[in-house]
Amino acid sequence: MEETLTASEAMFTANNLWIMIATFLVFIMHLGFATLESGLVRAKNTVNILYKNTIVPILGLLTYAAWGFNLMYPGEAAAGGFIGFGGLGISMPEGAAGLIEYADGNYAYWTDFLFQAMFAATAATIVSGAVAERIKLEAYFLFSFFLVAFIYPIVGSWKWGGGWLDTLDTPFYDFAGSTLVHSVGGWAALAGAMVLGPRLGKYVDGKIFPIPGHSMPLAAIGVFLLWLGWFGFNGGSVLSADPGTVSLVLVTTAMSAAAGGLSASLTSFFMTKTHDLSMILNGILGGLVGITAGADQMGIMDAIIIGLISGTLIVVSVVFFDKIKVDDPVGATSVHLVCGIFGTLAVGMFGELASAPQLVSQMIGIASTAAFVFPISYLLFYLIDKTIGLRISSKAEVEGLDLAEHGMKAYSID
Amino acid sequence: MEETLTASEAMFTANNLWIMIATFLVFIMHLGFATLESGLVRAKNTVNILYKNTIVPILGLLTYAAWGFNLMYPGEAAAGGFIGFGGLGISMPEGAAGLIEYADGNYAYWTDFLFQAMFAATAATIVSGAVAERIKLEAYFLFSFFLVAFIYPIVGSWKWGGGWLDTLDTPFYDFAGSTLVHSVGGWAALAGAMVLGPRLGKYVDGKIFPIPGHSMPLAAIGVFLLWLGWFGFNGGSVLSADPGTVSLVLVTTAMSAAAGGLSASLTSFFMTKTHDLSMILNGILGGLVGITAGADQMGIMDAIIIGLISGTLIVVSVVFFDKIKVDDPVGATSVHLVCGIFGTLAVGMFGELASAPQLVSQMIGIASTAAFVFPISYLLFYLIDKTIGLRISSKAEVEGLDLAEHGMKAYSID
Amino acid sequence: MEETLTASEAMFTANNLWIMIATFLVFIMHLGFATLESGLVRAKNTVNILYKNTIVPILGLLTYAAWGFNLMYPGEAAAGGFIGFGGLGISMPEGAAGLIEYADGNYAYWTDFLFQAMFAATAATIVSGAVAERIKLEAYFLFSFFLVAFIYPIVGSWKWGGGWLDTLDTPFYDFAGSTLVHSVGGWAALAGAMVLGPRLGKYVDGKIFPIPGHSMPLAAIGVFLLWLGWFGFNGGSVLSADPGTVSLVLVTTAMSAAAGGLSASLTSFFMTKTHDLSMILNGILGGLVGITAGADQMGIMDAIIIGLISGTLIVVSVVFFDKIKVDDPVGATSVHLVCGIFGTLAVGMFGELASAPQLVSQMIGIASTAAFVFPISYLLFYLIDKTIGLRISSKAEVEGLDLAEHGMKAYSID
Repeated sequence: MEETLTASEAMFTANNLWIMIATFLVFIMHLGFATLESGLVRAKNTVNILYKNTIVPILGLLTYAAWGFNLMYPGEAAAGGFIGFGGLGISMPEGAAGLIEYADGNYAYWTDFLFQAMFAATAATIVSGAVAERIKLEAYFLFSFFLVAFIYPIVGSWKWGGGWLDTLDTPFYDFAGSTLVHSVGGWAALAGAMVLGPRLGKYVDGKIFPIPGHSMPLAAIGVFLLWLGWFGFNGGSVLSADPGTVSLVLVTTAMSAAAGGLSASLTSFFMTKTHDLSMILNGILGGLVGITAGADQMGIMDAIIIGLISGTLIVVSVVFFDKIKVDDPVGATSVHLVCGIFGTLAVGMFGELASAPQLVSQMIGIASTAAFVFPISYLLFYLIDKTIGLRISSKAEVEGLDLAEHGMKAYSID
Repeated sequence: MEETLTASEAMFTANNLWIMIATFLVFIMHLGFATLESGLVRAKNTVNILYKNTIVPILGLLTYAAWGFNLMYPGEAAAGGFIGFGGLGISMPEGAAGLIEYADGNYAYWTDFLFQAMFAATAATIVSGAVAERIKLEAYFLFSFFLVAFIYPIVGSWKWGGGWLDTLDTPFYDFAGSTLVHSVGGWAALAGAMVLGPRLGKYVDGKIFPIPGHSMPLAAIGVFLLWLGWFGFNGGSVLSADPGTVSLVLVTTAMSAAAGGLSASLTSFFMTKTHDLSMILNGILGGLVGITAGADQMGIMDAIIIGLISGTLIVVSVVFFDKIKVDDPVGATSVHLVCGIFGTLAVGMFGELASAPQLVSQMIGIASTAAFVFPISYLLFYLIDKTIGLRISSKAEVEGLDLAEHGMKAYSID
Repeated sequence: MEETLTASEAMFTANNLWIMIATFLVFIMHLGFATLESGLVRAKNTVNILYKNTIVPILGLLTYAAWGFNLMYPGEAAAGGFIGFGGLGISMPEGAAGLIEYADGNYAYWTDFLFQAMFAATAATIVSGAVAERIKLEAYFLFSFFLVAFIYPIVGSWKWGGGWLDTLDTPFYDFAGSTLVHSVGGWAALAGAMVLGPRLGKYVDGKIFPIPGHSMPLAAIGVFLLWLGWFGFNGGSVLSADPGTVSLVLVTTAMSAAAGGLSASLTSFFMTKTHDLSMILNGILGGLVGITAGADQMGIMDAIIIGLISGTLIVVSVVFFDKIKVDDPVGATSVHLVCGIFGTLAVGMFGELASAPQLVSQMIGIASTAAFVFPISYLLFYLIDKTIGLRISSKAEVEGLDLAEHGMKAYSID
């Protein structure tokens, strides 16, 4: 008896350790977003984007503790349904048993909470890049608050909380959140970019004027950190340290990222004849988003194909959004929305689950997320615009948000 | 028999793995300090601060191996006392048993050494920010050497080495070092800033002239890395991978950091009407220092309250030190000393240990650390000043330490 | 029975977890190289070096999956020989057993693949620094492709794949790759720097004109990240989470790094009377490369001595290569080749394996690697030069590779 217990405890400890480490890696993604987005905006808006990327994980952690966790994982409160709520606040289940045997015995209650809270903040961070360089700080906080505190947990509950998408005949499949995290952030980002309109000087007289980022080293640091963090984002979503599954997920994640970078760089080179660093970087991110829905269901060749398609999609999508004059300074919509949709569909087309019914379920998941997140985000941005105001003045936009909203400059390098 | 052994070995391996990972995370804090402090000084002093932050972990590792480890953990040499010494150098205890069953069977001898050595270097690094932009490099090395090689291990031995603070009737409690690490560094930082005097141009004709840092991205990177590293600093201080305790510590750490950032940003906004990025960043650090003494004793609400108070304290403290003309370029004294003291007191006021006798013991620990570290640091800085000289010439200060002491510039960006 | 299985599974899970984490740490080294090399080149070539450091892990992952893994670990195909090949592509061995009991039961198949693939890409990344600021992008890609896809796996198979160096009477010993990774990259780097010739303006009229890097913060970030990553590079090479061995390896690694930094800073100060940040940084890297061949065979004093010698070698070597007009912008040859050779010899001179026969075997390993990698690399660079061209035009070199090859600037900071 005693030996059995000890062996189980050791396994529990190893499993819990992995989820804690995965939590750290997802935390690193917030630094990755902060540096990537900083690098891709102009120097005069750098303090502003850093401020936003700092406040978002703070908001995410606090609201998730206050009610988000219980909204996303309502337990019995709304199994199979559209919305449920387990009550305000969180607290560890009673007794050591509650702590140790939570979640199929794989990890502790607090580990679960922190891992999920780090995920929640990710969705809101995606938005900040798309609305950068022209949104009011308070407006952004207000929207992020609604997104992280309500929209994200409600959609998440549909699948991960045991809601209706999880109880379809062929359940919708979204391993680590191509739809539930990335496209949620992506739809909100699209809505924000549309309501805000483009930055001054981006589209003039029917011409597109690229506005390059101010620091390519920061952008590159961001993508490497995001890639690193993704090993935890996807690998931690196994919800145990199971050697076979986790290591497979790490390999499909790495392969799709590599293939995404390769195809984006080639596509972009054939289109522009230059080696565009921002394209290979965004291609890596596209590959990462693309593999996220099915990272545990794919073989190595599947992962490479998904990455190659995702990387190509990125380049095409960036051009497309510029053509329809949706100004997204960092390409967040292309990365998280377009590749999020493709990655979700890919589960029905490649790998273990590929089948027509699965593809239909994937479409249902994508469509229902779109139908919920986009209109509500659009409405929220619209209401914010009509009340406290969404966009800074032209004067402040020209001067830069750093001086206008923060009274400071990002750099003093003589 | 054999099964029992194997299960224990697996648990030992998991525990040891966690402490090794925590060691890496504490190592990352050195990069966090290097980037944070670089970002908050002027461009002309950037090479200098990077040099200091590079030499400190080097000094820490080498002196800790030479005698620091045996001074901090003297074993039988001075149980319950003020000072003891286990002998020069370190070596693994004899035999496989010595290796494996060290430290209650939770981790290997070398893991313990490296984790503690990384901690030791942290205390010295805290000082470098407060004395930045005007201290001579050799003077800083000399002081850091004394701090990391003698002052820190002696104070640490009082509690963690089984010394007199650990054997009070109600033992002083300092889980991961709000006092033993952060206020030790903080008192030394305060002494250094006082002996050195303010930077040229900071306080002129009774007015305070803020000297902004030169790179907010570097500062933000630093704080995110420090937050990340703190998961290992606090989480590793559990000294095992126990799922329940470690995961609770991670959550209280994250919550206090988030609450500290929030309250510092709000307090600072109400005081200055701008969104000051350096305040939200320092608020996060304040929350982290504040929770460090009791991270394993607090509930989620306790942690949030401690963070909220710490974040507010930061803002008030930064203003206070400027008022009394103690010039601390990065706010190290506010973060590590003020929040270190508050966090230590908080153990007597919130959470599992809250009680009047505990609060008294906490005060004894705080006061005795202050009474030992501040005068001796002040004296050391004074003696250095009177011998090899502490402060660079006004000419070198105006020119910048990078050219004056290193003959190079930090940046060549045209 | 069942308990035994469970305990073994827990141990397997912990071992596998460590190798996965070590893989992440080696991945971080790619960000470390990217930031270090960026920092040490001029601003006008920053996008270019970031692009190269982004494409290399991509190439490494994809070619290693296509055939590199089976070329380096040919299994029965060429045991004891010079070259063998296990077939195109990779796939998990049949059945759960194949997955779980691979590699002496220590980690999963996919974990092994990903850890080794991350290693492979490291060798190619070493080259990019030495050929920086003057090589054509396509030429670099072509060479890197051959290096990572053929040269590195073939040399690696001689020892790690069970080839002839592993079956000498006294087997050649190279724990984590001072020779098999670092000197392979170093010989290729030397060949590249020689065929390319120095940068314009470096050596004029018999004088040496130092060309300082453009961002010391980036360089320092790079070295800290490389040090961090090395804990996984060396620690993961234990191929299990064995507490005693892994923790010893971490300590020897840290001690040698610290000693390398110290001796390089002292040597450089005595030679130039200034505190050169780039020297202390390269000294740390020298200590890391130096300990890599014997990190599991050394005591703490051995490690410190190896570090001290490595750090001194760095300074001398940098001066030497400048004297013979081999222009290596980041010092990659000094760090990876010179300290790689010394570290390999050190296994025969210090620690557990020190003996005359071992020293002879170490020399055989060093000489055979040199005899294979240097001529073939030289020839490849020569052939590339005579076909698609190796070096950019003088006009492009003066303008900078960022504008010439990428049509963009790294920075827009006004």
